[in-house]
Order: sequence, then C-alpha cells, then structure tokens
Amino acid sequence: MEVKARAPGKIILAGEHAVVHGSTAVAASIGLYTYVSLQVSPSNENNDRLILQLKDTALEFSWPIGRIKEALSSLGGPFPSTPTSCSSESLNLMLAMIEEQNIPEAKTSLASGVSAFLWLYTSILGFKPATVVVTSDLPLGSGLGSSAALCVAFTATLLACTDTVNMDMKQEGWLVFGESELELLNKWAFEGEKIIHGKPSGIDNTVSTYGNMIKFKSGNLTRIKSSMPLKMLITNTKVGRNTKALVAGVSERTLRHSDAMSFVFNAVDSISKELASVIQTPTPDDLSITAKEEKLEELMEMNQGLLQCMGVSHASIETVLRTTLKYKLVSKLTGAGGGGCVLTLLPTLLSGTIVDKVIAELESCGFQCLIAGIGGNGAEICFSASS
Amino acid sequence: MEVKARAPGKIILAGEHAVVHGSTAVAASIGLYTYVSLQVSPSNENNDRLILQLKDTALEFSWPIGRIKEALSSLGGPFPSTPTSCSSESLNLMLAMIEEQNIPEAKTSLASGVSAFLWLYTSILGFKPATVVVTSDLPLGSGLGSSAALCVAFTATLLACTDTVNMDMKQEGWLVFGESELELLNKWAFEGEKIIHGKPSGIDNTVSTYGNMIKFKSGNLTRIKSSMPLKMLITNTKVGRNTKALVAGVSERTLRHSDAMSFVFNAVDSISKELASVIQTPTPDDLSITAKEEKLEELMEMNQGLLQCMGVSHASIETVLRTTLKYKLVSKLTGAGGGGCVLTLLPTLLSGTIVDKVIAELESCGFQCLIAGIGGNGAEICFSASS
Repeated sequence: MEVKARAPGKIILAGEHAVVHGSTAVAASIGLYTYVSLQVSPSNENNDRLILQLKDTALEFSWPIGRIKEALSSLGGPFPSTPTSCSSESLNLMLAMIEEQNIPEAKTSLASGVSAFLWLYTSILGFKPATVVVTSDLPLGSGLGSSAALCVAFTATLLACTDTVNMDMKQEGWLVFGESELELLNKWAFEGEKIIHGKPSGIDNTVSTYGNMIKFKSGNLTRIKSSMPLKMLITNTKVGRNTKALVAGVSERTLRHSDAMSFVFNAVDSISKELASVIQTPTPDDLSITAKEEKLEELMEMNQGLLQCMGVSHASIETVLRTTLKYKLVSKLTGAGGGGCVLTLLPTLLSGTIVDKVIAELESCGFQCLIAGIGGNGAEICFSASS
Repeated sequence: MEVKARAPGKIILAGEHAVVHGSTAVAASIGLYTYVSLQVSPSNENNDRLILQLKDTALEFSWPIGRIKEALSSLGGPFPSTPTSCSSESLNLMLAMIEEQNIPEAKTSLASGVSAFLWLYTSILGFKPATVVVTSDLPLGSGLGSSAALCVAFTATLLACTDTVNMDMKQEGWLVFGESELELLNKWAFEGEKIIHGKPSGIDNTVSTYGNMIKFKSGNLTRIKSSMPLKMLITNTKVGRNTKALVAGVSERTLRHSDAMSFVFNAVDSISKELASVIQTPTPDDLSITAKEEKLEELMEMNQGLLQCMGVSHASIETVLRTTLKYKLVSKLTGAGGGGCVLTLLPTLLSGTIVDKVIAELESCGFQCLIAGIGGNGAEICFSASS
C-alpha cells in the first residue's frame, strides 16, 4: 500500500523582521505543496532497503536496512507518539550514513534535510524497508517554507502507517488529520526543522501542518481563519540572501536609531493586527471583497515602506515593485528580504490578460513566477492500493 | 546705480508631510539662486516706466509710472519698514494691470509672482521708474522654493535702495544684511509669498533669507548651523504633482490607519531630530566627516521608506532611487513627492567620474540634474556703478 501526503509552503503576509523585535506578524499557507509518497516494501530478507528519491534534484539515497539498524538502533525507537529531539551524537551517526552515499558536492546542503528524514523515519516507523519519493512545487531556500513542508509531509506519511493515527484507508481523495493527530504531526515536524535550521521559530511547520493563517508575537502563535479568497503572485527573484546578516543588520540599525526604529516596529505591529482583522472579518458580498482587497493592498504598501526603512529591500525587489506598479498592482517582499520572494496581491476582479502581461514582464527579468491561493488547507494524506 | 541681489532655493532634508501631523522637519538652503538686478532710472517726465524682465521665460512687463500711480496710489505707501499684507482689493487692482500686458496664455500662472513684485515694489519703493531683471538657477514649481527666492531677492534689492537698510555701497562682492534688516527682509518676502501661495508655511522665505538650515515643528522655526560641508545631487524628475492632493492623501491614510500612521510620524520626528543633531555636531577630522555622511545616508534611507509608507512616492522617484543605488548612493524625495525633486547625498570622498556617470544615466531618463552645496548663505546683495 502507498501513502501520499502533501504539505503546503508559507508566506509572511506582514511583520517579518519586526517580529524579532516584539511586533505581531501574520503568516499564511500557500497552495503550493511538497508531496511525499511512501510505500512500505514486503520484507525480503537480504534485499531489504530504505530508498529515498528526491525527484526535483534527481538524487537517490539507498541504504540496506541492516546498515541502518547497525548504525542507528542505539537511538532506540520507534516511539511514534513521543516527539523527541535528535541529539548531536545521533545527528553525526546519520551524517556518516549520508556521506557513504557519495552525494555530488553541489548538493551536500541537502544533507540536513536527509538527516531529518532519517531521524523522523527511524523514530516513527523504526527499521522497515520502504521507498519514499519526494517532489515539490516549492523553490528551495527562497523563504517559502520548503523545509518545513518537507518535514510535515514526511511525518504525515510516517504517522499514517502507525497505529497512532486512525484513518479510514478506504476513503478516496485527500484526507485531513484530526486535531490531536495534527498536534503530534506538528511536534514531529518541528523536531525535523530543528535538525535543518538549528533554532527554527516553529512558524513554518505550524502553518504547513494546520494551513490557514497564524498570527504570532513574542513566540505566541494564534491560528486564524481567513474569511475571504485571496490569491497572490509570488515572484522568486532567485537572489540568494543571508538571512542571519539581514536580521543582524536590522538589529544594528535599531541600536544606532533606537527611538525611530522602535516607532517603526510599533507601526508594523499595528499593520499586522489590522491585516489579520481585515482577513478574519466576514465578507458579505463581492463589493466588500474589493474594498477589503484595497485595504490589504494599502497595508502591504505601508509594510513594504517600513521594511525599506529597516534596510532589508534589494534592487531585485524594487524591480518587481516597479514592474507590478505599472499594472496598478501592489507588492511587498516576504520573509527575510535582500532578494528572495515578493508577493503581489491579485484582486478578484483582475483580468487574466493583465496577469499574463505582468508575469511575462517579470519572467523577462529572469524571475520565477508562481500563482497561489492563500490560507488554504494544511497537511493532507491520501491512500491508494500499490500499483 | 545698479543693485543686485541673490537669494537661494531650499530643500527639505527630512520630515516633509509628517510635519503637517506634528513631526519635526529640517530644511536647508541650496547653492542655487534667483538673481534680481534693479536699476533706478533717472526721472524723465513722460517716459518714466517700470520695466520687469523675466529672462528665463523671455517675458517683459512695462508700465508707465503714471499708470501705476493712477491704479495703485490709493494703497498708500511707500512704507518700507512696515511689512503689510496685500488685501484682495489691492491684488485685483494689480491683476488688472498685469492683464493689460497681454501675457501669452501658457504663462498666466506667472501673474501671481508679478503681483507679488508690484506689491513689494510699490510698498517699499513707491512709484520710482526702474528696470528690474530676474534670472534663476531654480526650476519653477519643482519644490525648490523658487517663488520664495524670487520674493526674497526682489525685496533685498528694494530695501537696499531705501534708508531702512544701511550698507557700504562701495564694498565689492556679495554683502550680507545685518540681523534686524534680515528680519525685515524675511517679513516682506513672506507678504510676497502670501500673494503667490495663499497660506505659505514661511519656511521657504526664512531659509532663503537666512540661509543655513532650519528645524521646524508645529509652526515653530529654529535656525541651525551646519558644521560640515554637504553636497547634494538634486534630480528634477519634471513630473508635475498636485501638492494639495498628496497632503490630503496622507491625511486620509492617517484616518484609515491612525495607530500605524501615528507611529510613522513619530519615527520621522525622531529621524529629523537626529539628522539635525548630526549636522550641528562639530566635525574634528575627515574620518568623522565620512562617518557623519554615512549616518545621514542611513537617516535619508529610513525617511524615504517612511515616505513610501505614507504613499507619496512615485515611479519616477523610484527610478532615481534605483539608478543612484547602483552606484551605492542614497537618495530620498524632497518636498511633496509624487514626482518633483529627489536628493542624493554626494559624499566628500566620492570620485567625480562616478558623479558624471550617475548624472549621465539620470539625464538619459529625461531628468534634470543639479549639484548644489547645502546650508550656505542666505540673501546677499551687491552694488555696482551703472554701466
């Protein structure tokens, strides 16, 4: 039998950077997914293997189950219902196993993702032979939460194969976990994120697990539900950035101009709260959808100005802003800035012709354009008979 | 004998728009001038005329002194030491006289400037025949204070011909008025500005009269003196804007998002104060000039982000920002925004080659580039024997 899971990426709608200084931020799931398919193999003694195929990077890892047992059985497990952190000793054991696979030099940055997979796999399923296949809509390392989506989708397939999750395997289509199962899923995914990122905020995995939107401030996350359809053009500038340096730059500017920056962070806090409230307020008719979209556009424009004030914009981001503005569309950077991705609100009544023109112009600058619904479902699974 | 005067234009270094909502702003004189030359003619009975030549617009106004006396002697005067407002009745009398001169349709917007001239002339000098010639470095209506510079330069030549100002006419070169004469000059120029602008803030004429810089908040002006040389590239986008509509737009945004905008205005207030303090602090050596320039650049970048947050930027302004940023130079809009002029700080150690390249690139976009020292002298006069 095959279990498939899909888990969405995320965007920051408002409050990036300022959140580090105590402001409210709002994140949302996007209709772009990482897909994981898991097929537990019938046991076959000497040929038993654990195979991981990363389709987008054309990489395959394949370990004899015996080798995994030998290296990792000291870790204990499986303990699917008790999310546990991977110690640095365990991580080193896994990294050694990954090194045996001779990954091409350019792709060694994937090692932490594969370690997260091995940790989640052995901790939740133990030492069963299986083939795991990963594909994704999400560009890697561009701030859209690709690593969290990977951890959530991995964990979802793994939990679905254990007794801790109770689902009707005969139902067709994408299924949603129950509330307590989502909580377990989220905790395990967070353990995976810790292996990849060191000290993640927990925002990405929470959005990917639960979907919709979350408001967060000083480490407290509140799930909120959008009451309006919302579609964004997500432009990946493909400009790599150093998130740590950008965060440090804002902190240094805050030390130099503490009064001004503290007002700036307060302004962002107020914008995030207002944005969350606009999104949650029921929308009785089409007319008010347009009015709400205009409010969101104004708040996005204001937030972008404040991000420029913090010094985290970038020439590539400004190019996207200028290009979309020509079509009277409003954009803001999302995430760390300094490159990365830019959001452009696509109003409900906007004609497809305009969208096509904007995309053509952005792509001619060398950018990648994705269109996604915002605030949709989180992790989902789907069962199918083995082919 | 000929009296010449020159009066500088102004820029807003920080705080435009926010000043309307109670924040501090900083304005400075620029080394770009309006020049007025006044030559009182020997009286010649029937041929006595008052001639005004506006060289930059190739316009000449010429009235028989008899006609001016007939139309305006009811106003009383001359009363050079008592700055007096022009009533709407008096303004109508002057506008009628200007209409007699058949100005080309396209240039009727100059009528208020010519009215200001007539009011200042007859109030300060009475009904003497003379030829007055005006030239200017300042583009009209682009937010660089051209009308105030005109009123200040007019008034300076007029006062220099009366007994209220006591100067050594034999001295060569540009001379500065004494403190009490500057005060009189500033008050008269403000009366001229009122004819042109209705309700001017008084900032433009004060900067043009006294030079240097002023800090202003809630109607209170404080003169400050720069302790460092400061040079700016001033790019005139030539995009006309509607200042009233831009100011109203910020007020409407403030009504819609009062909390966020109030934090934004507080941030601007803090930036203006910091900028004024950096500029006033003594600079012991070259090293600290560079450090101060970097601080000013950071404050300009922050202020620009906050102006974008208020919604008063414009595609043409963004083009200037992007272009100068390529050369690692920092820019901000100055004045109303929505087009108009953009400031770019030119650091002391910047090579002339770079400046030439930036200017060439900006001019290729159709913009006009001016380079000016910031915070120099205010109004000055110069006497020369008639040729």
